[in-house]
Amino acid sequence: MTNSGIKFNILSTDGLARRGCLKTAHGEVQTPAFMPVGTGGTVKAVMPEDVSATGAEIILGNTYHLMLRPTAERISRLGGLHKFMNWQKSILTDSGGYQVFSLRNRQTIKEHGVIFRSHIDGKKIELTPERSSQIQNMLGSNITMVLDECTEWPVTEDKARQSMELSMRWAARSKSAFQQRPGYGIFGIVQGSVFPELRRESAARLVDTGFDGYALGGLAIGEPQDVMFDVLEKTIPDLPKLRPHYLMGVGKPADIVGAVKRGVDMFDCVIPTRSGRTGQAYVRGGSLNLRNARHADDDRPLDAGCNCRVCQNYSRAYLSHLVKSGEMLAGMLLTIHNLHYYQSLMSNIRMAITEQSLHNFIKLFEEQQETGPIVSETY
Amino acid sequence: MTNSGIKFNILSTDGLARRGCLKTAHGEVQTPAFMPVGTGGTVKAVMPEDVSATGAEIILGNTYHLMLRPTAERISRLGGLHKFMNWQKSILTDSGGYQVFSLRNRQTIKEHGVIFRSHIDGKKIELTPERSSQIQNMLGSNITMVLDECTEWPVTEDKARQSMELSMRWAARSKSAFQQRPGYGIFGIVQGSVFPELRRESAARLVDTGFDGYALGGLAIGEPQDVMFDVLEKTIPDLPKLRPHYLMGVGKPADIVGAVKRGVDMFDCVIPTRSGRTGQAYVRGGSLNLRNARHADDDRPLDAGCNCRVCQNYSRAYLSHLVKSGEMLAGMLLTIHNLHYYQSLMSNIRMAITEQSLHNFIKLFEEQQETGPIVSETY
Repeated sequence: MTNSGIKFNILSTDGLARRGCLKTAHGEVQTPAFMPVGTGGTVKAVMPEDVSATGAEIILGNTYHLMLRPTAERISRLGGLHKFMNWQKSILTDSGGYQVFSLRNRQTIKEHGVIFRSHIDGKKIELTPERSSQIQNMLGSNITMVLDECTEWPVTEDKARQSMELSMRWAARSKSAFQQRPGYGIFGIVQGSVFPELRRESAARLVDTGFDGYALGGLAIGEPQDVMFDVLEKTIPDLPKLRPHYLMGVGKPADIVGAVKRGVDMFDCVIPTRSGRTGQAYVRGGSLNLRNARHADDDRPLDAGCNCRVCQNYSRAYLSHLVKSGEMLAGMLLTIHNLHYYQSLMSNIRMAITEQSLHNFIKLFEEQQETGPIVSETY
Repeated sequence: MTNSGIKFNILSTDGLARRGCLKTAHGEVQTPAFMPVGTGGTVKAVMPEDVSATGAEIILGNTYHLMLRPTAERISRLGGLHKFMNWQKSILTDSGGYQVFSLRNRQTIKEHGVIFRSHIDGKKIELTPERSSQIQNMLGSNITMVLDECTEWPVTEDKARQSMELSMRWAARSKSAFQQRPGYGIFGIVQGSVFPELRRESAARLVDTGFDGYALGGLAIGEPQDVMFDVLEKTIPDLPKLRPHYLMGVGKPADIVGAVKRGVDMFDCVIPTRSGRTGQAYVRGGSLNLRNARHADDDRPLDAGCNCRVCQNYSRAYLSHLVKSGEMLAGMLLTIHNLHYYQSLMSNIRMAITEQSLHNFIKLFEEQQETGPIVSETY
């Protein structure tokens, strides 16, 4: 993999945790990294410059949404996704498969690909591994993901094997259709549900094909946290050490901390953005529900220890008023704060790894989670 | 009126149009000025720093909305509206009357005041001139508006007279209840519908009471533009020349231009913000509907002559995609652009007055309106 289009350097390690730096055509990404989700060409409710100001160096775009609207062809004609959405840093795109399966688009899976109906206009659409790579190429994505079948959970081992084997054949085809160029790469996705043998076999087959990075798919879909951690512990040792490891769709702060400890480098999740739009704020020790009446007269910031522009300028009372009034500004401000919380968590994690103090960091983090979010007067 | 809490200097004139500067406890306001509407403690869909960046020096807050939620008492406890919503420049608040009448809250009007039901929880509430002034004082509003009855249009002269006379008695009571202090003021509101005699009498009675500024109410409620201009021409000469003249709830760009020419100094309107949230963009010569299919592949900015951050960074194609996808960012970006358009219009108007070229400015403006919004390739 020395010819990879995506450079990845591991700067230091602490146990299994790694502090690294990914280099794409659109700049560096310090890892462990959290990628805000920019579903349909926008990280919902936030200006791209504000996403960047929280510290994010890479975002995730959803191939499924973009291929349906405004279409990859249109984005390509307009100069690619970076220019289209005014985001100058790196972009990773998923393959479209996850939404095809999770939105239950009456899909039919065949060896060739998956046929589904658009949730927008009901139109029949075929997505193949080749087409997915082609779409992601048209978008100008820095990191293309292979098309895979997202195996449901729970599932029998037999079904998980069939699904994994299909995904591995699709992974090889996705790779073949990927256009190699400097600063751009393609990641394989390990499947196999919670079965260690299947995960091991999946990892081996991906390594055989050769990818710029390795993702763990089929997790964070309802299984308990310890089951997920168990899969990580049994799978990550089988992945190439010198390539980035990406845990897809994860997660809550505690999931991220636990996964970093087990060797994961990259994450994406809608939690900070989605919860921001529903009145929830992540703070030290947990989260606050701004709909709760106790915030109505509270002139303190969301988190006195946070230096984001929301905590510098607005009280819980004001945010609570905005949430109750259904004002757009509520979602805008809470999303910025939550993204800042997540990026700040990642930054602290990176520092802890550099200082070989991840163990203490996690201990303190867990103590704070135990104590709960900061709600008392004595902060 | 030399003891007014609000300083107002007229810097130059051009015909009846005036270029002035209003001074409140929260800074200067260059006039003619447009005030974005910050209904419930937020200019909808925009960060206050972005409102400020468009050039706005004063915003309008709605007493009706704020008194119901989060209540004036709560805002007062939290340090006033400026601090609550993180807006450091001037604030004018309306009296609450307009919404009481326009939201048709099953209101009962008595000499003492108006009794209505909250649109939020149906609670019975009384709003009197004294209570309105007290609420606006608790909010910390720089400019308090008197409580008036917003006479409907069309209306008989008899009914208009009764309504105007009630409003004049309320105006005097509002003023009595107002707490005078430097940097803060109270404006009277001329009523009398479209009847010149009533307007003249109303103006005289307000001048008799003495106010820091004089507003024209009961306009922009459905009457044709020429009827409104006619009222302005017949009423403004009766207002004190050295005090600001404020045309409430106006308006479209052409209304503003025509009203400035007739001696109006201040405006407020929801048009730039509301239309931004419904996919409409104000540009040279008119407005664009971003839902229109012709924008889908158009990589030009909304207005090539606009230097706002939206026109600098986003294409019509992208904005059209956001609007069609129902993304919050659509409303956020279009609102910023529209507010910038309005403030830029005001800035150009001010420059034209200073240069004694308002006549030419208006001629060019009207020619552009005639030509229509910029849609062709040859800009």
